[in-house]
Amino acid sequence: MAKNLPTNCPSSEKTIKDLLQERSKATFNPLKITNLLDGSQEATIRRQHLESLITKDPTGIFSNDENMYMHRTDRHVRSLAKHVRLMELCRSIGIGKEYNGEIVLDPDFHILIEALADDLPTYLHWVMFVPNIRSLGDEEQQAKWLPLCRDWKMIGCYAQTELGHGSNVRALETTATFLKEEDGGDPGGSWIVHSPTLTSIKFWPGTLGRTGNHAMVIARLIDGQGVDRGVHNFLVQTRSYKDHTLMKGVTCGDIGPKIGYNVMDNGFAKFDQVKIPRRNMAMRFAVVDEQGNYSKKTVSEATSKISYITMMQVRAMIVRNSSKVLRMGSTMAIRYSAVRRQGFKDKHMKEENQILDYKQQQHRLFPLLAASYCFFFTAKKLSENLKAIEERLYSLSNGDSNVNAEEIITKIEVGGIHASTSALKSFCTTVAADGIEDMRKACGGHGFLQASGFPEMICSYLQNPTVEGDNQMLPMQVVKVLLKLVNDVKSGNTKNLEDWRKTDAKYLIEPLKEMVNGNTSTKCNASSKEEMMDASVFHNAYQHRAARLLFEVSNKIEQDVKNGQKFEDAWNASLIQMGRISKAHCAYLLFDNFVQCIKEESEKGNVSPAEESVLNHLAMLYGSYWIEKEIGDFLEDKYFTSEHAAYIRSLVLEMMDKIRPNAVALVDAFDISDFRLKSALGKYDGDVYPAIVEAAKRDPLNASEPGPGYKEHLKDLIVGGVGVYSGTVSRL
Amino acid sequence: MAKNLPTNCPSSEKTIKDLLQERSKATFNPLKITNLLDGSQEATIRRQHLESLITKDPTGIFSNDENMYMHRTDRHVRSLAKHVRLMELCRSIGIGKEYNGEIVLDPDFHILIEALADDLPTYLHWVMFVPNIRSLGDEEQQAKWLPLCRDWKMIGCYAQTELGHGSNVRALETTATFLKEEDGGDPGGSWIVHSPTLTSIKFWPGTLGRTGNHAMVIARLIDGQGVDRGVHNFLVQTRSYKDHTLMKGVTCGDIGPKIGYNVMDNGFAKFDQVKIPRRNMAMRFAVVDEQGNYSKKTVSEATSKISYITMMQVRAMIVRNSSKVLRMGSTMAIRYSAVRRQGFKDKHMKEENQILDYKQQQHRLFPLLAASYCFFFTAKKLSENLKAIEERLYSLSNGDSNVNAEEIITKIEVGGIHASTSALKSFCTTVAADGIEDMRKACGGHGFLQASGFPEMICSYLQNPTVEGDNQMLPMQVVKVLLKLVNDVKSGNTKNLEDWRKTDAKYLIEPLKEMVNGNTSTKCNASSKEEMMDASVFHNAYQHRAARLLFEVSNKIEQDVKNGQKFEDAWNASLIQMGRISKAHCAYLLFDNFVQCIKEESEKGNVSPAEESVLNHLAMLYGSYWIEKEIGDFLEDKYFTSEHAAYIRSLVLEMMDKIRPNAVALVDAFDISDFRLKSALGKYDGDVYPAIVEAAKRDPLNASEPGPGYKEHLKDLIVGGVGVYSGTVSRL
Repeated sequence: MAKNLPTNCPSSEKTIKDLLQERSKATFNPLKITNLLDGSQEATIRRQHLESLITKDPTGIFSNDENMYMHRTDRHVRSLAKHVRLMELCRSIGIGKEYNGEIVLDPDFHILIEALADDLPTYLHWVMFVPNIRSLGDEEQQAKWLPLCRDWKMIGCYAQTELGHGSNVRALETTATFLKEEDGGDPGGSWIVHSPTLTSIKFWPGTLGRTGNHAMVIARLIDGQGVDRGVHNFLVQTRSYKDHTLMKGVTCGDIGPKIGYNVMDNGFAKFDQVKIPRRNMAMRFAVVDEQGNYSKKTVSEATSKISYITMMQVRAMIVRNSSKVLRMGSTMAIRYSAVRRQGFKDKHMKEENQILDYKQQQHRLFPLLAASYCFFFTAKKLSENLKAIEERLYSLSNGDSNVNAEEIITKIEVGGIHASTSALKSFCTTVAADGIEDMRKACGGHGFLQASGFPEMICSYLQNPTVEGDNQMLPMQVVKVLLKLVNDVKSGNTKNLEDWRKTDAKYLIEPLKEMVNGNTSTKCNASSKEEMMDASVFHNAYQHRAARLLFEVSNKIEQDVKNGQKFEDAWNASLIQMGRISKAHCAYLLFDNFVQCIKEESEKGNVSPAEESVLNHLAMLYGSYWIEKEIGDFLEDKYFTSEHAAYIRSLVLEMMDKIRPNAVALVDAFDISDFRLKSALGKYDGDVYPAIVEAAKRDPLNASEPGPGYKEHLKDLIVGGVGVYSGTVSRL
Repeated sequence: MAKNLPTNCPSSEKTIKDLLQERSKATFNPLKITNLLDGSQEATIRRQHLESLITKDPTGIFSNDENMYMHRTDRHVRSLAKHVRLMELCRSIGIGKEYNGEIVLDPDFHILIEALADDLPTYLHWVMFVPNIRSLGDEEQQAKWLPLCRDWKMIGCYAQTELGHGSNVRALETTATFLKEEDGGDPGGSWIVHSPTLTSIKFWPGTLGRTGNHAMVIARLIDGQGVDRGVHNFLVQTRSYKDHTLMKGVTCGDIGPKIGYNVMDNGFAKFDQVKIPRRNMAMRFAVVDEQGNYSKKTVSEATSKISYITMMQVRAMIVRNSSKVLRMGSTMAIRYSAVRRQGFKDKHMKEENQILDYKQQQHRLFPLLAASYCFFFTAKKLSENLKAIEERLYSLSNGDSNVNAEEIITKIEVGGIHASTSALKSFCTTVAADGIEDMRKACGGHGFLQASGFPEMICSYLQNPTVEGDNQMLPMQVVKVLLKLVNDVKSGNTKNLEDWRKTDAKYLIEPLKEMVNGNTSTKCNASSKEEMMDASVFHNAYQHRAARLLFEVSNKIEQDVKNGQKFEDAWNASLIQMGRISKAHCAYLLFDNFVQCIKEESEKGNVSPAEESVLNHLAMLYGSYWIEKEIGDFLEDKYFTSEHAAYIRSLVLEMMDKIRPNAVALVDAFDISDFRLKSALGKYDGDVYPAIVEAAKRDPLNASEPGPGYKEHLKDLIVGGVGVYSGTVSRL
């Protein structure tokens, strides 16, 4: 095929030169930012070394060059091979066994997984299954199961959702019914795990279909007395250790192709009276004895909240990933926009403009670039805050008898950070999913190619707005928490308000107090564009907006209920506004944290003034862009005048001008290698056009000449004249 | 596989009953609307009959049941087989030969293509290649080529874009150089078609890669005197009629996998000094004689604009398709939301709510449902308007010597409809692409499944925001036209303004006059929610917004140039605002036309009051939703007060309440059969859960037990213990 095409497509001097020129214009040192993102200079070196183990692996199994041409089944099989080779590699260098003496996901192992730049069907074993055992299994169970997990004897998944039931856990139908020894159970008693209906089939759990041999099944516990004790976790062996065949009564398989993430075997499982040992129920918080008597263990409120923090940590990880995917997209789109040219500069029609010089292109790409930095800092801070709360909960649960402290942290602080993580998960994944698709569109036709690197990234990312709390549902959780704060302000509960001051929601207290006291006419006091260009002006605007929207919904619901509506109906009628509140809360947190973190990193000496300056431009673009986008929220109660709106629009343009010369360097700073980027458009050297052509030539459709289907079908039409019109046929 | 699963999954009584109940609540007759959408009762019957030819075809080749499991190559081959069978079928019933005596796309053939519910690699032959010959070939060329096209001897594509060049046609690099007979050309002279660089390789044309044997190549014409005459069209045979092998000097192939539309072989082609006859240049508007002398034919301005109308008709078709894809998405999402339940109704935790009862779900789905109706009416009106202009251009070009009339129509009317089609193409495809993805997300996890029907529809649709004028570029063209109107108002050009009154932009004249006269403080005069709920209030608001934004950008550019900026820079600085103007123009046109068309259809007796009423609810929802969404535009210059904003929000909620009982009937009215919908979630009978499970079971990953890859790879890890940790390895 393609025999007349230059087999070594000439590098395009022009596009290569374009990127070199862009890099020469940068006003800062990208490596400093790389180190900041990795955590330190040493961390960057370590990461690069681990990445080289993958790219230089002599087996060649880690190559992704053929991914886009492969059938789903073949990709799944190949990624199993990748996993096995990765473990072999890890074991030869002592990585992935345990970390700090514990069986958890080793950070180095995680870096290696990311270095693959491909999905693994085994991913959720470490990310969901093992943490579940750690948080819900008792000590004996952990001691028994975790080493099997580490050694990949036990490969597990977390099986919660059912065909007819998503996030409403209380509606799950799968049952685990206690069976005493004397009634036919095994010695010590058994559980009979059963799927009573079609809609109760477990559906969606990753790794469940083909790869795993165990599932942590969430099922309704029916105790020895026949009492339904609500949902609990049960470890069900689904396949034999010996030959991976299905265990008795278990049916499972893959749920079929998806819009993305097709390497993963999301699975279904139907349990037909499957018998498992009594001790396969996770027994950290509740136990069932050999007679089937159910009892909750006495644990402190703090202890019970610890597993709750785990869920939030998963959300924090999702926020971190939203930054990563935006970094990938920005790298592809900004580099390509610097070498892609369209529209003549002048009447001589000699040179075309770099796409990156068009304002509407900058307006599509730069705010997303800024978001990728913003979300990074937020995810970092969020993880730190969660870690701190988790440690305090541990210390409380380990005997600190300060009941008052326990109440504070469990009642309000956990709520506060729950509101933040929910709001951030919802907002950041929405921005990332929409953003990478918009960056793809900003690459024109070539963005539609798999070889651009966008399609697989986008399609696989699309699960994120849905999983771990649907982005449309989370705002309700946010508002539920924040309305408690409004009520505390309204009722003047000074003690609670002191506790709220320890949370991310503290910024809402003062403006809410003002509003409760009848002052609802606060205005932005910037009186010129120059005055407007100040982080504190944005800060105040975001603060005011969030408080106002929250206050209004609080009043609306109260009023509706007073007017005789059922609470559920009043709540339903305000759902749309809750989405706005959640976004507004998020917008404040993101901007505030972005500005603060830059300051902190500078004070710690992690960045020099040159980097601090360019990061501040990103923060100010981020801040002004999101006000511009939701300007109605600021105009509606006259907090802003039309002049303020005009200033904001100018500021966005100004910030884009500032960022333009550093745009390519800002994506270089992400240090995403070509191996990880997998993008013909985003290549580091800018030599995009030969890469596109080379990718085209490798498509299996081009393997024969003429193409497949000609001889069997098309020829019948062109040469054979299939069913040629006869003159006698009249129109139907 | 799945041997323990019920092989005949029980129908879920509940979900089936849900849809029956929904249908019983409808206040109108869906069939009336179906007829309206099809054009008439007879048209509905005809369409349904043609669809049955496909679904009942005895060969079974048209089944789409296995599509989602197939490798791209296999799907391409299968769709070639579908095309051949379709032609055989058509020829047996006299369809697709010609229509009204002309060789054009037969509407019945088009209905059959749509009935396939699958893409064909041959689609662009009728949609782009044949129309190009008809509009740019001279009579002799048409007489020679069109019968070959009709008979599928000649299968063609339209080859414009190049690897390095998209919509900037003037930058194309491919050359067609005249070669006289005496210099080695064929008798009468030849063209040497050549790709001089890597970036000049033709890239993207559909059907070019594997299926077509001809390409209409857009290339720079170098005449016999060596003068570059700009781009012209040349018919290049790429493959032999006899065996489909590549012609001398031609290299072409498929460009590789894309995010969607993978049945189509978008192709690349490199021409290495390919010799074609002189008369393969399309010679309707310019000729080159045997000596290579180039001359333009004398054609009237009207004639030259006719082919311009063809481009706009393609855009009108794209607007029509944006409605269709929203209908598909609405059908899937609304039916599924009526049977999907989540969240308990009350404390007894017996019954869960229908998702469709949640306000934020309605807020995601109903405005898109409304948009699908709105875009339908707009596309219809747009086509009618284009047809009318085309006919007048034809009559002018056929000798009507009214030069004045010709000037009017070519200078302003064509401009006006160009602005409308550009704005509508950009807006409607953006709303549709974002909308169907949001409807997918609104289906939760199951929307992520290919079996939901969303993924393929979405991914293949994603080309639309990019092709035929990138959605980000089109607003510039809109504003370029509309700024002429502003200048005519500013300069008081009464004669031109009379002409503008014949265009879609006429509504802008009066408010612009006001603004030019210094009155920029117009306000909305509705003083209560009841007064606000009036189409004329929305109408005025949309009118005012569009005029204001346009006026401001006109002034801004003038001012910037006065202040010494280059025009190009002033233009660039206003690009972002141009996007807003284009949307605002569109919003007026869409709402205005929606309301008008409902009135007209009612007056014509095509709908009864029951249907008129529900269509009006959709129109009012559409109108209020888009004001709510872009409320800042109406608040910024104080046209709206915060009270108005509050009224609008209430109205949106009220309209959703009105639409709720009719929601399922409104998608039933689209009459999209299960065969065409290809969606487990959107099934007409509501029996979704068995359909999901059946689709899962058929995935090839489930063909063996244990799954593929276990014996070759996973077993090595679980049983073989690949590279188990030895006690002596220290951490790298």
